[in-house]
Amino acid sequence: MSKSVFYHAGCPVCVSAEQDLLSLVGAENVNVVHVGINKEKVQEAESLGIKSVPALVTPNGNVLHINYGASIEDLKN
Amino acid sequence: MSKSVFYHAGCPVCVSAEQDLLSLVGAENVNVVHVGINKEKVQEAESLGIKSVPALVTPNGNVLHINYGASIEDLKN
Repeated sequence: MSKSVFYHAGCPVCVSAEQDLLSLVGAENVNVVHVGINKEKVQEAESLGIKSVPALVTPNGNVLHINYGASIEDLKN
Repeated sequence: MSKSVFYHAGCPVCVSAEQDLLSLVGAENVNVVHVGINKEKVQEAESLGIKSVPALVTPNGNVLHINYGASIEDLKN
């Protein structure tokens, strides 16, 4: 199985969701991208269809928006 | 690992999220509850902290709201 990618911004909602998902899906199956620190990843996240973080992009490219931490728009600044 | 529970209402957003999650987490690790058909499960979902479906309740009781299909309030009718 190719890896999923978990995009987050370091907020408490993100950290909580990350812990849950890595536990359920398996940490070895997920790459984690911090778009709050790596601003150049914001555009990448948006191009994948991510509207808010935390979000998990599945191996087949589907976006699962999980709970609500921050909108991608807010991370552009 | 005890099972997660996936609550949904049969809408397209729910079905899509269900397919993704069962694939990622493993179908054998998830119980699926259709709150659109089983109305008596709406109160159970609400008591677990679910505000909208689809949602995944993890083995440790955390609620992951995934994308957005329908609010629990709308399912009470």
